[in-house]
Amino acid sequence: MPKISQRGQEMPASPIRKLVPLANKAKARGIKVYHLNIGQPDLPTPPEGLEALKHIDRKILEYSPSEGLLSLRQKLEKYYHRFNINVGVDDIIVTTGGSEAVLFAFMACLDPGDEIIVPEPAYANYMAFAISAGAKIVTVPSSIDTGFALPPLEEFEKLITPRTKGILICNPNNPTGYLYTQREMDRIRDIVKKYDLFLFSDEVYREFCYTGAPYISAFHLEGIENQVVLIDSVSKRYSECGIRIGAIITKHKELKANVMKFCQARLSPPLLGQIVAEASIDATEDYMLGTYNEYVERRKFLIDGLNRIPGCYSPIPMGAFYTVVSLPVDDADKFCAWCLSEFEYEGATVFMAPASGFYTTPGVGRNEVRMAYVLCKEALQHALVVLRKALEAYPGRTV
Amino acid sequence: MPKISQRGQEMPASPIRKLVPLANKAKARGIKVYHLNIGQPDLPTPPEGLEALKHIDRKILEYSPSEGLLSLRQKLEKYYHRFNINVGVDDIIVTTGGSEAVLFAFMACLDPGDEIIVPEPAYANYMAFAISAGAKIVTVPSSIDTGFALPPLEEFEKLITPRTKGILICNPNNPTGYLYTQREMDRIRDIVKKYDLFLFSDEVYREFCYTGAPYISAFHLEGIENQVVLIDSVSKRYSECGIRIGAIITKHKELKANVMKFCQARLSPPLLGQIVAEASIDATEDYMLGTYNEYVERRKFLIDGLNRIPGCYSPIPMGAFYTVVSLPVDDADKFCAWCLSEFEYEGATVFMAPASGFYTTPGVGRNEVRMAYVLCKEALQHALVVLRKALEAYPGRTV
Repeated sequence: MPKISQRGQEMPASPIRKLVPLANKAKARGIKVYHLNIGQPDLPTPPEGLEALKHIDRKILEYSPSEGLLSLRQKLEKYYHRFNINVGVDDIIVTTGGSEAVLFAFMACLDPGDEIIVPEPAYANYMAFAISAGAKIVTVPSSIDTGFALPPLEEFEKLITPRTKGILICNPNNPTGYLYTQREMDRIRDIVKKYDLFLFSDEVYREFCYTGAPYISAFHLEGIENQVVLIDSVSKRYSECGIRIGAIITKHKELKANVMKFCQARLSPPLLGQIVAEASIDATEDYMLGTYNEYVERRKFLIDGLNRIPGCYSPIPMGAFYTVVSLPVDDADKFCAWCLSEFEYEGATVFMAPASGFYTTPGVGRNEVRMAYVLCKEALQHALVVLRKALEAYPGRTV
Repeated sequence: MPKISQRGQEMPASPIRKLVPLANKAKARGIKVYHLNIGQPDLPTPPEGLEALKHIDRKILEYSPSEGLLSLRQKLEKYYHRFNINVGVDDIIVTTGGSEAVLFAFMACLDPGDEIIVPEPAYANYMAFAISAGAKIVTVPSSIDTGFALPPLEEFEKLITPRTKGILICNPNNPTGYLYTQREMDRIRDIVKKYDLFLFSDEVYREFCYTGAPYISAFHLEGIENQVVLIDSVSKRYSECGIRIGAIITKHKELKANVMKFCQARLSPPLLGQIVAEASIDATEDYMLGTYNEYVERRKFLIDGLNRIPGCYSPIPMGAFYTVVSLPVDDADKFCAWCLSEFEYEGATVFMAPASGFYTTPGVGRNEVRMAYVLCKEALQHALVVLRKALEAYPGRTV
């Protein structure tokens, strides 16, 4: 039988994925599983998007342009202007989700062997897309002890080699919920400028900044406008992860042309998703504020609850809808598996994402998990009780 | 400014894409442009698919499973059984169009430097996906003089190196409309078996075989069941190119696991497209037969018309909805550009795809174009008149 690719085998199997069969078995035993493990919001898609879907009146569901529907790109342009992201329609290329945006950004910027520096913990799929592109992700560690603040400039500089092509940030951050300050963003700008790098900036959670501190887009940084590659997606902000609509935004002309070659090869982003996304941009302020307020409440509720459990610690996330929590356990991978396979409290258990999947430095974050507060408060309350009981019962407890 | 990737720059700009601005300018001058250049059918999407779209009653447009909705995969399983393709639900992975199926098949089977052999002329985007994967496409030439029949086995064997990992066929073929015979398929099987290769088989046009000769799937070939990687898409058969739903089908267990890693990294194929695709599989026999008969008529009409134009020659395509035509011109790239920029007949012109984009051997197919018969007969009739007049007027005419 012919051999499969080494590339695929090198791709780390996500620790979350490994737990899915355990969660399914738990459910099969009749156990209620609280999903704190994924960023799939339970909030409704905007009615504008759902209405547009009901009113699609086409006889042929044709290809759309490879760069996306002009009407959607025009709406996105206006949307970005609201955030003082001053890009034009021609700077916006619609992609099949933020996922394809990351993959095509890597493919169009990086050659095999090229390196990008990413603060860790980081969204696990960045590694997968880098492997697809033959590129190397080099991580600079941030720590729960400093609330996952940006590591000092020197830590980045230590990692720079002749193959370094870019820095990748996710802001607000998945998995930590961290929001970079103006001072931190200026430091990133300085290094991007000094070493003539690309700045890949994943800003899909921009609507969810909770501290009153301003959201700072990579496009707000002066002097590196042509080096910014913004990754975006409508999935999280409109609770429509399934429609697979994202975007790459860049002012770098040659890069745009390069990205378009990958877009043309795959012909077209999804037509139906584009129609829904375009309408969703008209979501009312009430809808957006309602979503926002809901996350603010859930955040407070979850973080307070976690920090009241003996031995648990979560920094206060400033954005997105995740937090990384340290638990009083020997090994979070084992603990998460144990919760799903050997534990239940009053017929329920919790599914958390072991943080090991977000670090590349071996052994780091071993007692950490990521939780998403995408469930309603009542569910979060139950989940907190279950977690407390699980920690009391877990044989590998360290405190 | 940081440098863009070499990979992207190596990706050939499609000759069709280069002509699009010329076509747009012609339209701006008020000229009617007959699009024979792309495989975007003008036939309606099945009412079952459009109805399902209207009745989507979800409050949240969530992620679907990375391997696709189970209900869609179950429907596909039954669909394949109708063609004696005996695969199970677990062998079917839903992708974002046939495009992603090709990309992921390459990513999961091939490492940088690996080679696959493809008969040319071939679908141009295979090259783009191979470049994305760092793999090399080696072409074995087929010729209009033999009606694009499969080249002899020896021609394949000459090209086999230690890096050869697979053979890729498209059957029925885009761009030639060729349909491989049982004898040809047996030859492909023999070589795949002898050299322990993958057989990538793109069969998205299986519904469109016109000669009464049976459609032979790669999965019908005995003894290589675990080596076949079938590429599929609902785009063409249900005229719903925009929904972006395809599939990879394989029985090779390790390969399935490898493909799934790429699927998991991009989270989910499009939810809405999957719902439409699932319903479209219920298209009535009347619908399918109507589409089929329409193509049969258009094929006869176009091919007869072409072969009546002095100096033109088209073999009779046995499947799909394309044909490769040799024209009495010095250079088809120039001729196609000239038609769009310098010619019109009674306010109309034709947009054809120069065949140079489908060959990698330099200079081959220089006087050939690909035409898609995706327009109604009346449009084809006008287009044929315009083409005849264009050939009479073209300064680079060779006959």
